[in-house]
Amino acid sequence: MKHYLHIDDIDSMSSWLSLAAECKKEPFKYKKLGEGKVLGLLFFNNSLRTRLSTQKAAYHLGMHCMTMNFGNEGWALEFEDGTIMDQGKAEHIREAAQVVSQYCDVLGVRAFASLTEKEQDEAEMVLNGFRKYASIPILNMESATGHPLQALADLITISEHTKKKNPKVVLSWAPHPRALPHAVANSFIGIMRQNPQFDFSITHPPGYELNPEIVKDVPVSYDQNSALKDADFVYVKNWSAYKPYGEVLNNDPHWMITQDKLGEASFMHCLPVRRNVIVEDSVLDGDNSLVIQQANNRTYAAQVALLKILESL
Amino acid sequence: MKHYLHIDDIDSMSSWLSLAAECKKEPFKYKKLGEGKVLGLLFFNNSLRTRLSTQKAAYHLGMHCMTMNFGNEGWALEFEDGTIMDQGKAEHIREAAQVVSQYCDVLGVRAFASLTEKEQDEAEMVLNGFRKYASIPILNMESATGHPLQALADLITISEHTKKKNPKVVLSWAPHPRALPHAVANSFIGIMRQNPQFDFSITHPPGYELNPEIVKDVPVSYDQNSALKDADFVYVKNWSAYKPYGEVLNNDPHWMITQDKLGEASFMHCLPVRRNVIVEDSVLDGDNSLVIQQANNRTYAAQVALLKILESL
Amino acid sequence: MKHYLHIDDIDSMSSWLSLAAECKKEPFKYKKLGEGKVLGLLFFNNSLRTRLSTQKAAYHLGMHCMTMNFGNEGWALEFEDGTIMDQGKAEHIREAAQVVSQYCDVLGVRAFASLTEKEQDEAEMVLNGFRKYASIPILNMESATGHPLQALADLITISEHTKKKNPKVVLSWAPHPRALPHAVANSFIGIMRQNPQFDFSITHPPGYELNPEIVKDVPVSYDQNSALKDADFVYVKNWSAYKPYGEVLNNDPHWMITQDKLGEASFMHCLPVRRNVIVEDSVLDGDNSLVIQQANNRTYAAQVALLKILESL
Repeated sequence: MKHYLHIDDIDSMSSWLSLAAECKKEPFKYKKLGEGKVLGLLFFNNSLRTRLSTQKAAYHLGMHCMTMNFGNEGWALEFEDGTIMDQGKAEHIREAAQVVSQYCDVLGVRAFASLTEKEQDEAEMVLNGFRKYASIPILNMESATGHPLQALADLITISEHTKKKNPKVVLSWAPHPRALPHAVANSFIGIMRQNPQFDFSITHPPGYELNPEIVKDVPVSYDQNSALKDADFVYVKNWSAYKPYGEVLNNDPHWMITQDKLGEASFMHCLPVRRNVIVEDSVLDGDNSLVIQQANNRTYAAQVALLKILESL
Repeated sequence: MKHYLHIDDIDSMSSWLSLAAECKKEPFKYKKLGEGKVLGLLFFNNSLRTRLSTQKAAYHLGMHCMTMNFGNEGWALEFEDGTIMDQGKAEHIREAAQVVSQYCDVLGVRAFASLTEKEQDEAEMVLNGFRKYASIPILNMESATGHPLQALADLITISEHTKKKNPKVVLSWAPHPRALPHAVANSFIGIMRQNPQFDFSITHPPGYELNPEIVKDVPVSYDQNSALKDADFVYVKNWSAYKPYGEVLNNDPHWMITQDKLGEASFMHCLPVRRNVIVEDSVLDGDNSLVIQQANNRTYAAQVALLKILESL
Repeated sequence: MKHYLHIDDIDSMSSWLSLAAECKKEPFKYKKLGEGKVLGLLFFNNSLRTRLSTQKAAYHLGMHCMTMNFGNEGWALEFEDGTIMDQGKAEHIREAAQVVSQYCDVLGVRAFASLTEKEQDEAEMVLNGFRKYASIPILNMESATGHPLQALADLITISEHTKKKNPKVVLSWAPHPRALPHAVANSFIGIMRQNPQFDFSITHPPGYELNPEIVKDVPVSYDQNSALKDADFVYVKNWSAYKPYGEVLNNDPHWMITQDKLGEASFMHCLPVRRNVIVEDSVLDGDNSLVIQQANNRTYAAQVALLKILESL
């Protein structure tokens, strides 16, 4: 039984990529594989792309989907062990995960970082709660520290659009009015590190250092202009500080991505994107933006992940 | 590629009506047509009839449905161009519409009038936002100024129940505690004007004049009693003033429809209906009420609209 | 046309139990039966198990499901006759039930007790409103006074786990921070009374007497310890007082179920359960807990009820 919790669960990057290409060409090819199988999708947070693309992927695979917004449709969950549950939480993850495992064959879970409880976020309290107590495979639909479906879609997109063997890829921080999680950046860094053919680096203002255990030896620059120079792909994303955890240190508008900064590079973003805050209109509306293609590849990323899970059952 | 945005998108009234009759007789006849096709339903407002009847219609046509309450499940959308998105709106319609187009083959959108922003409502900001940026057909599930699925269901219902060649049809305003949109009235007027065999007129209190570009030369009377005289069908609906836009001018209970006023005429309403405010109980519970049949015909109206869209793909 | 509103709708306990066993063994055996049939699920309250298990059951039977959270997706319903609907309620149950009957072949309804309006709760205002005005079979997914799908799942679970002909079954009250409905306790008592082979009794603190018309001649004890002695199955549940209706009289923690009190008995609860309030961790995590099996049997209880309804169409 295989999960798709983290990009490390991709056993062979090249075989996943070719499977994605195959699914994109012939979406219903593996429709028999999911027949009679139920995919439960539990949302603890809002979702547009993940919600629809995962349902679409399941449909391509012949699976039956049951979607649930846990927040307002189910019961508030307790994740701590040994607590006296006499407050607001009505159900413990131990029961919830075991119960849901009996109604579904595969379980997708979306649960964002709190950005206030660092320890819980790093422990992936919700995702790992389900993994620990469920008896079925878990699909990570964005968790506190990772968004492996997004990263896989990003890799598919870069693969489809690169003309070079060793393209230069830069992850750039950009300003945003609210504190955002690190999940997308973390998984993108992870998948770049797993594919050493990319000339990969990161640029952000001082203070926005990401978790050093994830960044490891990836070059980091505080000088956005020099970092973006001659880039082939610029992946843009806001994140809040990792230290002090979840804080917005500054929102320097000079870090917004402009056509001028981008040059000939392709622009990437996971969406939703704040226009003229993260990036100026002309970039998004220009020919070098890949954001719509990335979103499309979310379907095939989910389809490959589900396919690998189904094959492991 | 055809949309169903407005009753003007009905290319031939008689062929649509006979197709509706055919679908009603044999609901699954065209089940092959939608096979492998995905219908996305995006709700920006509450819905009972539209939600269920459109899903039912899609099921009849073999389509796969993905339903989403955009308000609390997705991201707040920005529709203005060129704005600096540093406030509450997280995603621009340009991205949302393009992205959703990749997950679906047809897209249903429900977005009521604000009744406060006349210009935006008249421009059909939400519906037209999707039409402009989506690359797939759009199905109007009630927009700011029209409800063409309702109007088509209404026409089917009148056709089924008329014994005359030129029945007298009257649209009457009735009181309601809240300010309601003009969409249903607008589309009903439109479909009556497209079918000149009907002896059609409107009655409402002074001040409740609807958009003159929609009403055009339809006779309007401020005298409800004389307007309803010898009517065959009385379509009842509340709407707020068009000028001053969205205001409730008065709630004169004398405009409530009674059995006495109705006489032998059939009573029609799109539902939900406020009992003993819009119409007295005895009318709704009497033999001359067609409201349940109208609601049933919503399924076949949606089915015909989807069928025409599917045929155009 | 058969409903499943109440455990009294089970016409033959033994045939339902053997059908449940058959469905559990071969879930898709009756898949043809529901083909082309639509199950509408209307939720007026939160739900995890009922939501997913009923959808799963419908899937096994080949039915198409349309799920709706009536509270925030539809319109506030009026249930009183003759009212002037000029307040918050937008639609009357008379229209809603008739309309929905046209879109669905079977209708599941979940509507909890208010615990403040005793008369309305006892009259099963919501459930009976749908039963009265709908023209299709109704499936009770927990109503104000009963939860017959839960009771059937409970009976299936006991049947699967009993080694004795006349096992001793005890229903025990346990403390809870909030006022809870009587539905689960009522239906469990009812199904125990219908199966006189069980040596059945109830224990609760003074004041927590349930409706005497439901309890009838079932022995009731205020002494939990002696009541639990030599029990084979201990069904634990909190409920608020019946008199004064819906009140929490005390939350005596001594009534919490411990491993010590339970002895060799199997522990049962409908879930969600408050750990270390209703029952201590070691019981739930021990070998004698049947709560996960009960939840699993919700699928087969729903499947048998739907199967019986489908056969009656």
